[in-house]
Amino acid sequence: MASQWPPSLRVHLPVLVLFLETAFILIFYFFASYDLQADISIYPAFQNVNVMVIFGFGFLLAFLKRYSLSSAGFGLLLVALGVQWALIVDGFLFSGTIRINLYSILTAIMSTTAVLVSAGATLGKANPIQLACMAVVEVTVFTVSRWIAVEYLKVESHVTVMYVHIFGTYFGVMVSWMLYGSSQSPNVEKERSKPVSDMFAMLGTLFLWMFWPTFNSVLIKNEAERKVAVYNTYFAIAASAVAAFVLSTATSRDGKLSMAHIRSATLAGGIALGFSAPTLQHPWIAMALGFGAGMISVLGLAFVQKRFDTVLQLHDTCGVHYTFGWPSLYGALAHIILIMIKSRGNLSQMGYSALLEIGVLSLSVSMALGAGLVTGFLLTCKLFKPPPVTKYFDDQAYWTFPHLAYGY
Amino acid sequence: MASQWPPSLRVHLPVLVLFLETAFILIFYFFASYDLQADISIYPAFQNVNVMVIFGFGFLLAFLKRYSLSSAGFGLLLVALGVQWALIVDGFLFSGTIRINLYSILTAIMSTTAVLVSAGATLGKANPIQLACMAVVEVTVFTVSRWIAVEYLKVESHVTVMYVHIFGTYFGVMVSWMLYGSSQSPNVEKERSKPVSDMFAMLGTLFLWMFWPTFNSVLIKNEAERKVAVYNTYFAIAASAVAAFVLSTATSRDGKLSMAHIRSATLAGGIALGFSAPTLQHPWIAMALGFGAGMISVLGLAFVQKRFDTVLQLHDTCGVHYTFGWPSLYGALAHIILIMIKSRGNLSQMGYSALLEIGVLSLSVSMALGAGLVTGFLLTCKLFKPPPVTKYFDDQAYWTFPHLAYGY
Amino acid sequence: MASQWPPSLRVHLPVLVLFLETAFILIFYFFASYDLQADISIYPAFQNVNVMVIFGFGFLLAFLKRYSLSSAGFGLLLVALGVQWALIVDGFLFSGTIRINLYSILTAIMSTTAVLVSAGATLGKANPIQLACMAVVEVTVFTVSRWIAVEYLKVESHVTVMYVHIFGTYFGVMVSWMLYGSSQSPNVEKERSKPVSDMFAMLGTLFLWMFWPTFNSVLIKNEAERKVAVYNTYFAIAASAVAAFVLSTATSRDGKLSMAHIRSATLAGGIALGFSAPTLQHPWIAMALGFGAGMISVLGLAFVQKRFDTVLQLHDTCGVHYTFGWPSLYGALAHIILIMIKSRGNLSQMGYSALLEIGVLSLSVSMALGAGLVTGFLLTCKLFKPPPVTKYFDDQAYWTFPHLAYGY
Repeated sequence: MASQWPPSLRVHLPVLVLFLETAFILIFYFFASYDLQADISIYPAFQNVNVMVIFGFGFLLAFLKRYSLSSAGFGLLLVALGVQWALIVDGFLFSGTIRINLYSILTAIMSTTAVLVSAGATLGKANPIQLACMAVVEVTVFTVSRWIAVEYLKVESHVTVMYVHIFGTYFGVMVSWMLYGSSQSPNVEKERSKPVSDMFAMLGTLFLWMFWPTFNSVLIKNEAERKVAVYNTYFAIAASAVAAFVLSTATSRDGKLSMAHIRSATLAGGIALGFSAPTLQHPWIAMALGFGAGMISVLGLAFVQKRFDTVLQLHDTCGVHYTFGWPSLYGALAHIILIMIKSRGNLSQMGYSALLEIGVLSLSVSMALGAGLVTGFLLTCKLFKPPPVTKYFDDQAYWTFPHLAYGY
Repeated sequence: MASQWPPSLRVHLPVLVLFLETAFILIFYFFASYDLQADISIYPAFQNVNVMVIFGFGFLLAFLKRYSLSSAGFGLLLVALGVQWALIVDGFLFSGTIRINLYSILTAIMSTTAVLVSAGATLGKANPIQLACMAVVEVTVFTVSRWIAVEYLKVESHVTVMYVHIFGTYFGVMVSWMLYGSSQSPNVEKERSKPVSDMFAMLGTLFLWMFWPTFNSVLIKNEAERKVAVYNTYFAIAASAVAAFVLSTATSRDGKLSMAHIRSATLAGGIALGFSAPTLQHPWIAMALGFGAGMISVLGLAFVQKRFDTVLQLHDTCGVHYTFGWPSLYGALAHIILIMIKSRGNLSQMGYSALLEIGVLSLSVSMALGAGLVTGFLLTCKLFKPPPVTKYFDDQAYWTFPHLAYGY
Repeated sequence: MASQWPPSLRVHLPVLVLFLETAFILIFYFFASYDLQADISIYPAFQNVNVMVIFGFGFLLAFLKRYSLSSAGFGLLLVALGVQWALIVDGFLFSGTIRINLYSILTAIMSTTAVLVSAGATLGKANPIQLACMAVVEVTVFTVSRWIAVEYLKVESHVTVMYVHIFGTYFGVMVSWMLYGSSQSPNVEKERSKPVSDMFAMLGTLFLWMFWPTFNSVLIKNEAERKVAVYNTYFAIAASAVAAFVLSTATSRDGKLSMAHIRSATLAGGIALGFSAPTLQHPWIAMALGFGAGMISVLGLAFVQKRFDTVLQLHDTCGVHYTFGWPSLYGALAHIILIMIKSRGNLSQMGYSALLEIGVLSLSVSMALGAGLVTGFLLTCKLFKPPPVTKYFDDQAYWTFPHLAYGY
């Protein structure tokens, strides 16, 4: 039970976080102001998104019994830092100043989702200092990628936010790859769920599932499109939940269900609909897309994860690649195909639209991969790197349990 | 630890659910369309109801430590299937086509509550194949019973939805009775709660309790009636929570409180007010009704359950008869008496109103009993029936816990 | 495993609570009526506050493994009784009759927060009879203190509600002091958290954290002020969450984080902003105040609690003094200083405003201390006092766990 926490981190974490918060306060002092004209009628939807990002994602990833508290706790830190920093970067890039209203806070908190997804890939391999640095870099690069898409590719701002799942996944996978190294096998013993932690994760999953229609619709200003986005997402998540049960039983050796499959696949429908939710005019398309997304997610977890990850020496603790990455990629491709079908009468229009969408997608993926690689490399520097013994961090490394011998 | 799961189910469940979802998508392809004229301002209330049905009911029934995951997990499957099917049946019966807006989705998800209540009665005795079949049949029969009430008895549509608790209870009790057989004693060892599963159930209870005013009011179009329904339900649930504490202490041998009593009785007030919430003009009536509902629920659980259930060879795993059935029956009777008191000046009017209400109630109860009996009988057919060893299903039969010897 | 519950309580609790509920129903019969003119558009915000008070506070204090169920369960009883009684006292004092609308229910449920805070200080030392009596007295005295502030000091009604945290803390600390006696050391063994109960507490914390902007804004009628209150609280809680991580690591011996610190300090920002949220025009002030509140809360828990509490023979089970009391006092003082700075051009105005605020604060603190002392003294009377063996109550004393040897 000797402390495995490198003593230097006790100083470094407070200093780093204190520095960041002081910087935020100073920047807000000089540049931020409240926008009192803005509409506040979206407040209930705004709160739905807060529940999703702050509570849902933190608890979704709480299923590993050794990382439950860390997942929920560090999620809080990353959201609190990420939202403030996202408001700053977004404000400077898009309007040169920081105007605060519910829409700008929503954009900021939804951008922070990228950090939470990445944190899921690196859970147990990154310490809080590394996570806080990662949050700052990731939010910056993601917002830059959104700005390029809006400014040069003329994509609508609310659409660019939907790339957050893809961006978070590939950024996180790259960071995890750099942190993981090649010489050690993953600490499998620590990556076990247990019924109680599965219930907590189910809790997070259900709240994400229920509020996903809000996530896909809240930033859309056109009311008819917003309605359609709500309906489509609702049917897509229903179908992907059904797909989860179909595939999870079918792919397991003894016909049992896996909580990991249910968790990932039920959400896949909402993630996949991110791009096309406001444009589909028929529920059956949303249902079919959602069902496909759920299938892809389970198939990835059941067959690809172990082989692919071993070959590439990836180590994605919470399987975010198949929970967030694949469904979102699939949704982006489906969106491109749907656009092409829609404009099939006009070939040049069709080519242009498709190319544009492919361009935005490539931009997002390549910036995520590149920035993740560089960030991961920097995070292995001496300054951040803990001694080898603490390569894998669990709750025991971070949290005090007074008077209690640890061990769930 | 040998798998007790009959291998054939591994094929049957995916095939059945895949067939259902494909059928849903095809039916939606031909008949469903979005209603873009409809109001979306009830979206926050719509989300309250989603929280109740998807999260609340699943977790309310998660108190049995051996069925926690199954309760929350299968709840998700039943809701996902049930909502889509309820939209189809409701659309065909009431308007000949499927018009999708927040009101139609709300009606569908509130109708699905019946399935969740029935699932509570059969928990541990029905496998997911049986549950999915039960969901389809139950939603159909419930919607038919609503349609008869609206079409022939001229009851308002939103009132008929409130029979969902009674219908779900008696349908579920009948199915459970057929599945239970007469030769075996219930597997008491598996029907134990433990503090952690009680906390999860408390979580579900509290969210149901808080949002019940929405459940009783959301479908009411008249604003004054909607307000009154909110207020009345609020006071009724407060009074029934108080009744839970009074009766639970008084009826226990050692003066201790029982979580089962608290859970059931706190909700009883909301259920009982389902029928009369929009009509009561004074809070004290709601409080008195709510207090009575809480009392009845605890008295049923404390004194009637064991004797009655043994005599009739019923086996209602989660005690839904006393949590949902009795309070709802009591509420229906109270509603009839209140109507009679109101129209006491006009005897013929009084007789007519009372008879009408009694007619709707009888219709609902008799259709539930009949359909439940038939469904339960069909579910014991070879096609669905698992071998005797798996007569009682717990989490271990359905869920994989990687690398972990099961046992909470 | 012999019952440690004094048999007389088995009779006393039902009788007391039944008497209270009957009295409530009678009072509502004579004096209460529904206000159908009132606006219902704040319903979603109303539900946020219900989630905070009914679910959030109950689960926030569920971190002690031996008191989890009691915290969540008795919270329900206290809220159910407290809301009804608060409506009565508030109605009689402020308007001579009980007019029910969402605003009056909101005021009532927010006043009941005081009882939940006090219950946190007395957890494990008060039995449910004592808690129910405490609830009635505390709600009465708190509403009287609000009425004096509104009537004689001309403070706005919604501002007076914000003293609920200070009032609840000092009332509870006094009651706890009287119940604690001087001869016994606290039952430290029972005051342990464990990872699962910490997760439940995290759940409560996150919902409180997310919805705190609603708590600080919902009663404000002026739309511009309401918006600003939302924004300011949002930034304050983000900053105080960051402060929690900074200070918790820095103050612990081995650089680990303490869940108790995170819980308290993340909420501190919202509590501290209670008074000044609608008036601050710049986000950086809210962030700085929130950061300070988080720091103060952790410093209190880390350094002051053990020494101070031992010297004064206080025993504050959940540390509500540092979670609610200090941040609220700090917020009140900051508000006074901000008012003085604002009116620095006009010395007499400045003096008057500052004195007024200090007056309201002193009124609240002194009434809380006085009433808490008297209530605590009365609760040690024979009528309420359980025999010495039951001096400390845990879940085992109150809750039945059928078929299960208790022990988490």
